[in-house]
Amino acid sequence: MQLGFVSAILGDLKLEEVLALAADEGFACVELMCWPPGRADRRYAGVAHLDVSDFTGDQAEHVRGLVELHGVAISGLGYYPNPLDADPGHRAAVCEHLVKVIRAAPRVGVSVVNTFIGRDHTKTVADNLARVPEVWLPIVREARAAGVRIGIEHCPMLFSDDEWPGGKNVACTPQTWRHLFAAFDAVAPGTVGLNFDPSHLVWQFVDCGRAVREFGPHLVHVHAKDERIDRDRLYQVGVTGQGWHVPKLPGLGDVAWGEFFAALTDTGYKGPVCVEVEDRAYEGSLAERTRALRQSRKFLEQFMG
Amino acid sequence: MQLGFVSAILGDLKLEEVLALAADEGFACVELMCWPPGRADRRYAGVAHLDVSDFTGDQAEHVRGLVELHGVAISGLGYYPNPLDADPGHRAAVCEHLVKVIRAAPRVGVSVVNTFIGRDHTKTVADNLARVPEVWLPIVREARAAGVRIGIEHCPMLFSDDEWPGGKNVACTPQTWRHLFAAFDAVAPGTVGLNFDPSHLVWQFVDCGRAVREFGPHLVHVHAKDERIDRDRLYQVGVTGQGWHVPKLPGLGDVAWGEFFAALTDTGYKGPVCVEVEDRAYEGSLAERTRALRQSRKFLEQFMG
Amino acid sequence: MQLGFVSAILGDLKLEEVLALAADEGFACVELMCWPPGRADRRYAGVAHLDVSDFTGDQAEHVRGLVELHGVAISGLGYYPNPLDADPGHRAAVCEHLVKVIRAAPRVGVSVVNTFIGRDHTKTVADNLARVPEVWLPIVREARAAGVRIGIEHCPMLFSDDEWPGGKNVACTPQTWRHLFAAFDAVAPGTVGLNFDPSHLVWQFVDCGRAVREFGPHLVHVHAKDERIDRDRLYQVGVTGQGWHVPKLPGLGDVAWGEFFAALTDTGYKGPVCVEVEDRAYEGSLAERTRALRQSRKFLEQFMG
Amino acid sequence: MQLGFVSAILGDLKLEEVLALAADEGFACVELMCWPPGRADRRYAGVAHLDVSDFTGDQAEHVRGLVELHGVAISGLGYYPNPLDADPGHRAAVCEHLVKVIRAAPRVGVSVVNTFIGRDHTKTVADNLARVPEVWLPIVREARAAGVRIGIEHCPMLFSDDEWPGGKNVACTPQTWRHLFAAFDAVAPGTVGLNFDPSHLVWQFVDCGRAVREFGPHLVHVHAKDERIDRDRLYQVGVTGQGWHVPKLPGLGDVAWGEFFAALTDTGYKGPVCVEVEDRAYEGSLAERTRALRQSRKFLEQFMG
Amino acid sequence: MQLGFVSAILGDLKLEEVLALAADEGFACVELMCWPPGRADRRYAGVAHLDVSDFTGDQAEHVRGLVELHGVAISGLGYYPNPLDADPGHRAAVCEHLVKVIRAAPRVGVSVVNTFIGRDHTKTVADNLARVPEVWLPIVREARAAGVRIGIEHCPMLFSDDEWPGGKNVACTPQTWRHLFAAFDAVAPGTVGLNFDPSHLVWQFVDCGRAVREFGPHLVHVHAKDERIDRDRLYQVGVTGQGWHVPKLPGLGDVAWGEFFAALTDTGYKGPVCVEVEDRAYEGSLAERTRALRQSRKFLEQFMG
Amino acid sequence: MQLGFVSAILGDLKLEEVLALAADEGFACVELMCWPPGRADRRYAGVAHLDVSDFTGDQAEHVRGLVELHGVAISGLGYYPNPLDADPGHRAAVCEHLVKVIRAAPRVGVSVVNTFIGRDHTKTVADNLARVPEVWLPIVREARAAGVRIGIEHCPMLFSDDEWPGGKNVACTPQTWRHLFAAFDAVAPGTVGLNFDPSHLVWQFVDCGRAVREFGPHLVHVHAKDERIDRDRLYQVGVTGQGWHVPKLPGLGDVAWGEFFAALTDTGYKGPVCVEVEDRAYEGSLAERTRALRQSRKFLEQFMG
Repeated sequence: MQLGFVSAILGDLKLEEVLALAADEGFACVELMCWPPGRADRRYAGVAHLDVSDFTGDQAEHVRGLVELHGVAISGLGYYPNPLDADPGHRAAVCEHLVKVIRAAPRVGVSVVNTFIGRDHTKTVADNLARVPEVWLPIVREARAAGVRIGIEHCPMLFSDDEWPGGKNVACTPQTWRHLFAAFDAVAPGTVGLNFDPSHLVWQFVDCGRAVREFGPHLVHVHAKDERIDRDRLYQVGVTGQGWHVPKLPGLGDVAWGEFFAALTDTGYKGPVCVEVEDRAYEGSLAERTRALRQSRKFLEQFMG
Repeated sequence: MQLGFVSAILGDLKLEEVLALAADEGFACVELMCWPPGRADRRYAGVAHLDVSDFTGDQAEHVRGLVELHGVAISGLGYYPNPLDADPGHRAAVCEHLVKVIRAAPRVGVSVVNTFIGRDHTKTVADNLARVPEVWLPIVREARAAGVRIGIEHCPMLFSDDEWPGGKNVACTPQTWRHLFAAFDAVAPGTVGLNFDPSHLVWQFVDCGRAVREFGPHLVHVHAKDERIDRDRLYQVGVTGQGWHVPKLPGLGDVAWGEFFAALTDTGYKGPVCVEVEDRAYEGSLAERTRALRQSRKFLEQFMG
Repeated sequence: MQLGFVSAILGDLKLEEVLALAADEGFACVELMCWPPGRADRRYAGVAHLDVSDFTGDQAEHVRGLVELHGVAISGLGYYPNPLDADPGHRAAVCEHLVKVIRAAPRVGVSVVNTFIGRDHTKTVADNLARVPEVWLPIVREARAAGVRIGIEHCPMLFSDDEWPGGKNVACTPQTWRHLFAAFDAVAPGTVGLNFDPSHLVWQFVDCGRAVREFGPHLVHVHAKDERIDRDRLYQVGVTGQGWHVPKLPGLGDVAWGEFFAALTDTGYKGPVCVEVEDRAYEGSLAERTRALRQSRKFLEQFMG
Repeated sequence: MQLGFVSAILGDLKLEEVLALAADEGFACVELMCWPPGRADRRYAGVAHLDVSDFTGDQAEHVRGLVELHGVAISGLGYYPNPLDADPGHRAAVCEHLVKVIRAAPRVGVSVVNTFIGRDHTKTVADNLARVPEVWLPIVREARAAGVRIGIEHCPMLFSDDEWPGGKNVACTPQTWRHLFAAFDAVAPGTVGLNFDPSHLVWQFVDCGRAVREFGPHLVHVHAKDERIDRDRLYQVGVTGQGWHVPKLPGLGDVAWGEFFAALTDTGYKGPVCVEVEDRAYEGSLAERTRALRQSRKFLEQFMG
Repeated sequence: MQLGFVSAILGDLKLEEVLALAADEGFACVELMCWPPGRADRRYAGVAHLDVSDFTGDQAEHVRGLVELHGVAISGLGYYPNPLDADPGHRAAVCEHLVKVIRAAPRVGVSVVNTFIGRDHTKTVADNLARVPEVWLPIVREARAAGVRIGIEHCPMLFSDDEWPGGKNVACTPQTWRHLFAAFDAVAPGTVGLNFDPSHLVWQFVDCGRAVREFGPHLVHVHAKDERIDRDRLYQVGVTGQGWHVPKLPGLGDVAWGEFFAALTDTGYKGPVCVEVEDRAYEGSLAERTRALRQSRKFLEQFMG
Repeated sequence: MQLGFVSAILGDLKLEEVLALAADEGFACVELMCWPPGRADRRYAGVAHLDVSDFTGDQAEHVRGLVELHGVAISGLGYYPNPLDADPGHRAAVCEHLVKVIRAAPRVGVSVVNTFIGRDHTKTVADNLARVPEVWLPIVREARAAGVRIGIEHCPMLFSDDEWPGGKNVACTPQTWRHLFAAFDAVAPGTVGLNFDPSHLVWQFVDCGRAVREFGPHLVHVHAKDERIDRDRLYQVGVTGQGWHVPKLPGLGDVAWGEFFAALTDTGYKGPVCVEVEDRAYEGSLAERTRALRQSRKFLEQFMG
């Protein structure tokens, strides 16, 4: 396993600065954000350390050079839109950009692209799953052709009234994963898997170790983020309410990290583990965000060397 | 406290049979269902042991006579529709019937009517709360005039795709209760409270003992039902899914009954505690349902004498 | 479900006395011990409330008459030898008697016979399973012909150096049950199942509720016994030692009874539940053993009506 | 074991009424309070169902007659003063009365007297233990001569500022019990033991089952009372504060009753188990106190037949 | 947050040696002990790395120079006497010295002084709180004038018979903190807060995370020390006894460190966190004490970067 | 305490390479495997970084030179055969070699030799203990003469059908340890102790902290290995089955490391703590095994500096 981080937290740095910081802080890799140019439409979105919208050979060569220079690998390219958005125009736009990300990956020596399945948040799980083949099979075929594995982030994306009731990502439970992988593996075996993040399972009350053991062969990439359950807030609003679980740095929440890494190692996972900083207590200055990365590294090294 | 049961489980018996069975099985009271005539639109709905739609003095006298004859009190009248349904016509109809139930209560010597606040399940909590005063203040004033306390059942009513996403009852968490009681107490102090049922809090992950202690003065009526969390199913679908919690008889689920009754006694509650049978393992023959009541009584007596 | 008890604890009473005591103490049924005449070779063995070694029509009629007279059913016939004993002569003798028990059952209106699979305690699980078809298929065919279901008690029978190392009953874990039921169901579907006893699973650290849910259709009979884990003794000798778990009356050990009965009811079990008294604190006088039965009944009624 | 109750809760009833109520409610025995005439100096003190201050043969015969008439045994005589009070006069007075209670016991066929060791609450444990021989050895010799066993109630008696800091009973932990029994057994083997009450150990955080197993032979009498730890109050004032634990009826607090009775039965205890009602939620009318006794009986019968 | 340590453990080193050791071992700051000259009257007391009794401008300049030279900040000045001692002379002396510490702080660039509120250990909480204004308001005004925040260590100081019964520091629970802060904030808003140490809450059974969240704005300084509850000793002497909890290095006791730092970060605390070594297993040679600091640093870095 | 590792995991490296790797990776010591030449007869056996079969003065000097050169101490010599094997020839051979290891130890400046007591796995504990004096007293006398302490590894050595039923090491529980130490201390006080490994206690369900506190003076050497209980496998085969517990690196299993090191430090243990890598997920390339050591070091440093 290689320790890295998700570049979204360093949106104000340029690619070369991100890689230099990673090297300085002892990280082996970085997942690079590849949002299209333009403003972000939600927290943690919109960062582009790689602008793939019109990606030239020179740019690719430049990136490969930076990677070699800093000795820091790119663990994957990340772009987390809503490919099942209710608006057909929006769907088309994000799928078009996602394909650009997929095509760019091998040109910079990367074989993993991380993203969401998406969801029309006003519709049921079943309704959304019904639309998956139409939207996703073309993308999966693109990925297969490019030799790229897609890592599905399994966050329910349900944090506010804007995302209520269904959230903006349908691929968030074992039952759904089984359904999706059956469909995708039929046309492109092994192409689609999980960008596994234990924090999402904490508040879904889904047994994380069991999930890793069941879906081991489908693990494509790993995010290291913790989630704290706020018992007092949970009392106020109940499990169907909002705000009772908050993202924290690894070690400051309810993920059982020893058990998680026991499962990862037993299942034979050998890929990247990227810290994803979404802990608001560490989001101020660049110094604070750097400290967040450093602290997370120190915490995780005890479980992954 | 007086041990009773909810009459819905005996929909095939007549009122006198219900009261006789209660007496035979050692119950002190019964909550009588008062649905309007016509077919039920969901499980456990539609039973009318008291038809209040055109309630005459003779009928009232007959009921009072039966109560005296069998020595079994009526703990409350129950009618559980959706007063905040999206359809204005439906809203008007159920509110009209609810008022009839409220007016009937004192005529049969009963001071409690149990019901739902309701919810337009497609709208947010805030949107639904905004509509409460218009719909509910007239009803609350009717209750106050009739000397009747309204016990709000706090089940989220979210069990199937028909009720997805919001469920059909907005009054299901401490935060919402505080909001509602502030509004209702302003116009009719003490008139509206809770028909407290610990089973709904189990799967909401709301601390039941704390809730009883906070809302003690607002406890109007109590339902005794248990809820089992199905850990395997929860793994499959996560906490936002369906089917991972199932109603069981008291003692067969995850309610901490000793702690619950400790809170009830400490808070000074002295009203009825009515077994509500919704355990599918006991819903076959009348004999099985009778056994459900008997078993529940034996379980509960160790905590309430 | 019908509450009963295992007659072994009343070895000094005659059949009619056992049935009378059952009626007096409010039990609906009794599992009758059917050991062959002669002395017992271990604790709790050797009792014969029904001597089937030369069972005549008159005897059968007499038994049926007693059952009718006392209004207490016979939940099953019980004979718990070691059909896989290393000694071929012993094997033949116990199998011969077991067949007599099976043949006697329908003659007294009983459809369940409870017993052990047995084990050569000096051999591995695999070695013992290999011998099962030869010994057991003839018995299973007898049972099928007699219209009798066989309930396998799943105690490991490993309590002393005499039974060390393997114990005298191989059928004690889910893995083994699956293996056996596959073999038996192939020749006589549904004929062999479990005489389920949660106490054995407590100290095997096998999840009792999960086992009930997995093997629900194979539940033939249920024993109600508790088992206490003695934490101090476990520290002294470890899990591979002896004496760190002791049988107790229901409610005085580590069985989660609410969870157990939740599983039984959910899985649709409707058969007998027989208290098996092996708690040494209650084994003195007949009065003490009667109190053991009475206390167990009061404990169990809260979960089974 | 025989189920009974402590008569203090029925201070407004006469002895014959107490015994009649015990018989009606299905209790086998009663511990009779024997305070001297005069007003009580703290809650639950001052009741005298037997006035032993000038106990005549006629009185004794009358009591024995009532016991026979109602078929309810006297489990013990109870008098709970502070024999180690700082005031020598008070000490002398209570010791004198305690001796009267001891002498009265055999005259009414009773072999157990329950009381406190007492404590000068302003002095340390060591200082108080140093005074024990002078005060207690004469009493112990009296008890031995009378053939009476003394059951030491082990409540710390530390509930209010009046009892702060040390409480009014030094005999409240295993370490102290060992010290005292060594001293007492040296002069009168087996004469002094414990009137064991699990509720006191709950809030002392002393393992109740372990204590029963260690001190089994010294168990003279048992009180059945529960104690609830109020987690919110404990947060406010910490473990050295007051008010964070409250007495409750059996089953409504934190005592592990199954484990407690498992230990009692394993250790061979066969004496009385008397419900002690100090739950303020049940202390109103006689009807409420009777309900407290009834409810406690139903709860305890599942563990003691 | 800045990682440091309390200098008391290095009583045999001079100030420059303490700062050099801190720099070598990777600590960012040190809390300097400022006891008056003379012998210590209890364990961990008496160390003076800064003698403020007659503090000259030259001395202050020398200290500031050392701080700059070693690049190690002074997190606070520490002096932990008993300002509420029963002896008026002692009270006057310690208050006089405390004021000297307060006045010295800004002269060496320090804005925090840590101390105890104190307690007459023979009197109740209420009696002690009554004396607080007289003793403490002058000190608080001094602190305000000096621009210094006072951090109250909340240890109950109750470990031996010398401190029994009340301990020598009344400020040890949330209830008392609220009372004190209300009084102090009225005359000097924000001047007095807590020198928060989770180890004291472990054995007080006060929820540490809840306390941090409630008193976040009053957190002035943090001590990192662990406390192990000795379950066997607790069984012997109960919660009112002594010796059942022992100080340990962070990670070797019962503090939930992840939860503690989650609360600290959520509440916005950004000040020093100083390891306080009171683990007797590490108190031998300087090498052992240095190892204690190094080990604690490695443990804490995973939670604070 | 000194952090080291067991050299068995580096069987493909020469002694100088092992010491160099230890130095590079920051370890203070190594336990050197000393199996006799020839092939291993089970996993993790057979490695010889020191061939003591014909150990010359030159070889000893060479080893001492390497130790000095690399600055890495030898924590102990390890040889883990079965000295109580059923075959007398095998017994004689392994005892002969064990004595060679013991004699070699002081020649390379080492005072600890680690090994197994062994067991005839087909016989009971009692039968095996009876044979201990004959086999072991001569060895213990050799050790005493050589000034060497023997550290008994307490693994039950029961993982497969080859070792079933008794395992190949009888010294695996507190009860047995007490028995053995009584016998050995009688002839050579303090010569034999434990090579304590918490992983073996996890699956024996023996309280690790309690064992350290009871046997503290007998701790000779410590192995740091973790053990994960596989709950799903445990369900399948029960506690008497195999395969439900698996060795893992420290932090990835069920050992409570903080509690373990708290006990070690409280008991005054100051010797070596050697990582023993038997986690199959880390046993591939040398790079993976090196990472296993590095990760374990990072994990353990937080508890031992």
